[in-house]
Amino acid sequence: METPAARAHQDGAYTREFVFADFAEAFGFLAEVALHAEKMDHHPEFTSVWNRVQFRLTSHDEGRPTERDRDLAMVIDRLALKALGRADRKN
Amino acid sequence: METPAARAHQDGAYTREFVFADFAEAFGFLAEVALHAEKMDHHPEFTSVWNRVQFRLTSHDEGRPTERDRDLAMVIDRLALKALGRADRKN
Amino acid sequence: METPAARAHQDGAYTREFVFADFAEAFGFLAEVALHAEKMDHHPEFTSVWNRVQFRLTSHDEGRPTERDRDLAMVIDRLALKALGRADRKN
Amino acid sequence: METPAARAHQDGAYTREFVFADFAEAFGFLAEVALHAEKMDHHPEFTSVWNRVQFRLTSHDEGRPTERDRDLAMVIDRLALKALGRADRKN
Repeated sequence: METPAARAHQDGAYTREFVFADFAEAFGFLAEVALHAEKMDHHPEFTSVWNRVQFRLTSHDEGRPTERDRDLAMVIDRLALKALGRADRKN
Repeated sequence: METPAARAHQDGAYTREFVFADFAEAFGFLAEVALHAEKMDHHPEFTSVWNRVQFRLTSHDEGRPTERDRDLAMVIDRLALKALGRADRKN
Repeated sequence: METPAARAHQDGAYTREFVFADFAEAFGFLAEVALHAEKMDHHPEFTSVWNRVQFRLTSHDEGRPTERDRDLAMVIDRLALKALGRADRKN
Repeated sequence: METPAARAHQDGAYTREFVFADFAEAFGFLAEVALHAEKMDHHPEFTSVWNRVQFRLTSHDEGRPTERDRDLAMVIDRLALKALGRADRKN
């Protein structure tokens, strides 16, 4: 798994991209994020292809990212750091 | 839930888009598709935002969709038809 | 998929058991339930073996089922009815 | 997350129990295991309550655990060790 790249804002949205060992690891991470998002009642746009997951966070009503997007981005970063700790050791 | 739109091929890939009642229904569908994809060892590119899931199937090695993409598209269509049957009754 | 059996209460807990077409369908359903449970901040005990999922709802603090268990049982029943509509048509 | 307890065989089945930080982490792990199980076409019995997941592996046709159960147990242990590496650092 690679270091998460906190990409530069594109059109004002928070974006993140993570690369995992395989599809199962990527989807397990996605499921964990999904549960947090549902609890926060705020959902990221995500794109995945095999071991790669991208998130894009913005508030569609506002047309720009808000505090809720920042909060969700911080949750995603925390979950990814947890996965990174394990990647540092295992990969 | 809306009728799945079997979209016209874009740059030669099979694409599908489905709209569900909410995020939980969309992600449950995505999990079911993920398990089939893993079993077939062939994974779709997917994008989701809240209740909407898009798939794009192509073979990256080949640069075009192959028989494996067609097979996976047929599985996705079958799972969506099952969900549609339920949408006809409930929504 | 079989008709969900709203089993008689065992030691005061709400229990449910559902049988799906296969593991992928069962796990997709489980993921949908999981998202609702996380949002409600109330989680069922669940057991699964291949195409079969059992739920057991009680409040461990109280030692008996409470209103929150009843609410979650109703959500699970609603999601299962949706799946049943599709089972009536497809299986 | 606690150290995974490779429990003594009960009636000849492999059993495992893991405790995670919360439900989201537990279910993310479960989703990753589910994908591997589906690919191997061999599924564990699992029970979960909030942050706790138990597996029980046996071959129902044989009435005892077989080589396929041992293989799946090894996959589950590997995924749990990965999670443990992260637990050592984070918790």
